[in-house]
Amino acid sequence: MNQFFKVKTLEEVMEQVKDFSSVESETISVFDAFSRVLAENLRAKKDLPGFRRATMDGYAVAASSTFGASESTPAWLDIAGTVSMGDIPEFTVEAGKAVKISTGGMLPKGADSVVMVEHTELIDDRSVEIYKSVAPLQNVIEASEDFAENETVLAEGTFIRPQEEGLAAGLGFSKIRVYKRPRVGIISTGDEIVPIEEEPLPGKIRDINSYTLSGFIREAHAEPVCYGIVKDDPAALKKAFEKALEETDMVIISGGSSVGTRDFTIDVISSLPDAEILAHGMSISPGKPTILARAGKKPVWGLPGQVVSAMVVLKIVVIPFLNRLKGLDDRDRTIRVPAILSRNIASAQGRREFIRVLLEHQAGRIIAKPVLGKSGLIRTMIHADGLLEIGDHVEGLEKGSFVDIILL
Amino acid sequence: MNQFFKVKTLEEVMEQVKDFSSVESETISVFDAFSRVLAENLRAKKDLPGFRRATMDGYAVAASSTFGASESTPAWLDIAGTVSMGDIPEFTVEAGKAVKISTGGMLPKGADSVVMVEHTELIDDRSVEIYKSVAPLQNVIEASEDFAENETVLAEGTFIRPQEEGLAAGLGFSKIRVYKRPRVGIISTGDEIVPIEEEPLPGKIRDINSYTLSGFIREAHAEPVCYGIVKDDPAALKKAFEKALEETDMVIISGGSSVGTRDFTIDVISSLPDAEILAHGMSISPGKPTILARAGKKPVWGLPGQVVSAMVVLKIVVIPFLNRLKGLDDRDRTIRVPAILSRNIASAQGRREFIRVLLEHQAGRIIAKPVLGKSGLIRTMIHADGLLEIGDHVEGLEKGSFVDIILL
Repeated sequence: MNQFFKVKTLEEVMEQVKDFSSVESETISVFDAFSRVLAENLRAKKDLPGFRRATMDGYAVAASSTFGASESTPAWLDIAGTVSMGDIPEFTVEAGKAVKISTGGMLPKGADSVVMVEHTELIDDRSVEIYKSVAPLQNVIEASEDFAENETVLAEGTFIRPQEEGLAAGLGFSKIRVYKRPRVGIISTGDEIVPIEEEPLPGKIRDINSYTLSGFIREAHAEPVCYGIVKDDPAALKKAFEKALEETDMVIISGGSSVGTRDFTIDVISSLPDAEILAHGMSISPGKPTILARAGKKPVWGLPGQVVSAMVVLKIVVIPFLNRLKGLDDRDRTIRVPAILSRNIASAQGRREFIRVLLEHQAGRIIAKPVLGKSGLIRTMIHADGLLEIGDHVEGLEKGSFVDIILL
Repeated sequence: MNQFFKVKTLEEVMEQVKDFSSVESETISVFDAFSRVLAENLRAKKDLPGFRRATMDGYAVAASSTFGASESTPAWLDIAGTVSMGDIPEFTVEAGKAVKISTGGMLPKGADSVVMVEHTELIDDRSVEIYKSVAPLQNVIEASEDFAENETVLAEGTFIRPQEEGLAAGLGFSKIRVYKRPRVGIISTGDEIVPIEEEPLPGKIRDINSYTLSGFIREAHAEPVCYGIVKDDPAALKKAFEKALEETDMVIISGGSSVGTRDFTIDVISSLPDAEILAHGMSISPGKPTILARAGKKPVWGLPGQVVSAMVVLKIVVIPFLNRLKGLDDRDRTIRVPAILSRNIASAQGRREFIRVLLEHQAGRIIAKPVLGKSGLIRTMIHADGLLEIGDHVEGLEKGSFVDIILL
């Protein structure tokens, strides 16, 4: 017997993420931390850089020694030595003196600024002319100017980009606590689906979804685990689900979620231990037959079998959901590129619609051209650069409208 | 002795990529192909999907049997059977007949279209009312509509997104030829740099660049190989270069490329077997002291030691260069997000400037706010979402200008 439809909006489905806990965390080398999510707050144990540092090659001086210096009336300073990189300079820079310094060098006592080498002329080994005055602290970084001791520099839930990786390293966190990469189980179902190594007979088609879905999971820095193709047989499907639920953090099944002759997927999901159907149908297009369920503590998704629908639902719904399970804060990181619509498009009210578009640069603007073609054609996703989202209460958009494109 | 400066523009440096050959290719499972670059043209060996297929759940019919059908005057058709998924239907659909079919099912002979189940009402086991007429080929995909036999479906040099992975799988390419992931050697230099595990004494600083640069290399789907920190010693540096050049496809050294007391990096690079300095200085800011050289068949980069400069040059110059070595076609894939500048900014003519900006959504528009702070501060890169490029011949930009932001 069919369950009553629990059709939900995109926002309602995303709200359900709160019913699930994040994946576990682990401690890894900061060198491997790119694309992970921080599972702890990092505080600076010391000031960074920790000493007053030159940001230019030139001469460390007391700024007051240069006041009034110009091209026509240069200041004439005595060279009192050279700062060796990485060393603590032992001398003091007095008024009227200058010390050679390279970018990154430590300023000697008495020096509060650096004159760029381009604004000087060496007269002889012992004296230099300064053509431009400097202000105190010019061309230097103060000891705690980057980060101060005890400051929280990176918060739990931060996505680690190259700069966050470098900052953690610079503060001496050679190992950091991050969330584990989620493992996502993928099951393909349908009597018409054959493994890609087989030559499909008429009526049959190779398994595309296992590959497109795996690609998106990888793009989201998670690990896809494929459980192959399961025929339209409840016992076999249940067995595949049980194995996938045991081995992964989230399970996706594609195919079998349409209301038709083969809607037993929902019955199989319902029959799993401690299972609950959270959404049976979503008010988005494509992707209406999407199922979200809970099996024990893990989310289970039923995606439409059509290749384009499965990809759109994964990109728009499942990946943002997965990002939260990965421990990411709830900042929306979807990249949306503003563009101008190339032609009128119609849309039905009462559902969120996602239109495939191709992007073209024209005279400094980005034009979004809807990709025509049926949603069963993977060709349309090959030609598309992004998805245009049309709101639930919008009847259509006019040519020339400003739109935001979600990149594919 | 110093070489003459060979200061080049960004475009001139990118032109040099033609002097280098792509990395080698290898054959891998299509399941692992996400983020790789195709090293062969893929042609469809058969039509895709290969048979006339339903795109909706409903009834396969000859469209003419439905002509004139409407809510008030439905067409009444006899049900002649059900198409089993994956099977070749053996019956023929004659005029006045309908056959139950699910999405993805093969249309029987005589049927040229599918009536959606939503537009029908089952009268009894043997007859159905049709409330909406269909046109021939409505709700079906033709045998060669996605891709036709012998069509080139994916060209050499294509970046493999999830949809390209799925398409290759769907056409039966279980193994495909792709370019190898480039290995990129990273050397840090400078007497002031200590390993991140060490507590730096005053005057010294932990190695940040090996980590930020590795992160960007990983983001570009290549493999970073770190050769540690080399002191300011020509013999040690030469040895590190030789090892890195032997083991990797491209070598990056950070630090030691500024014109100061430590410009022996260029001498060491020049002394490598079959070496040629291609650029010594680039007209970009930050990043002026950048070096590009050829050592044998491999590119060698000298990046500024300052953390922000090194990151900007890597992102803006080295990664696009690396993408070409990875076999990618020369389409510019840099994502640029149109935004509105929050305040006036000045810029010097004669060089390309890259300003760190933070992006904020405000009333449906994206505002780009320049991140203030010295370029030696990694904090500024932590706060930044992107880089604003200011052209060589532009003196500055006014508040409210439309700008394109390169995402970080």
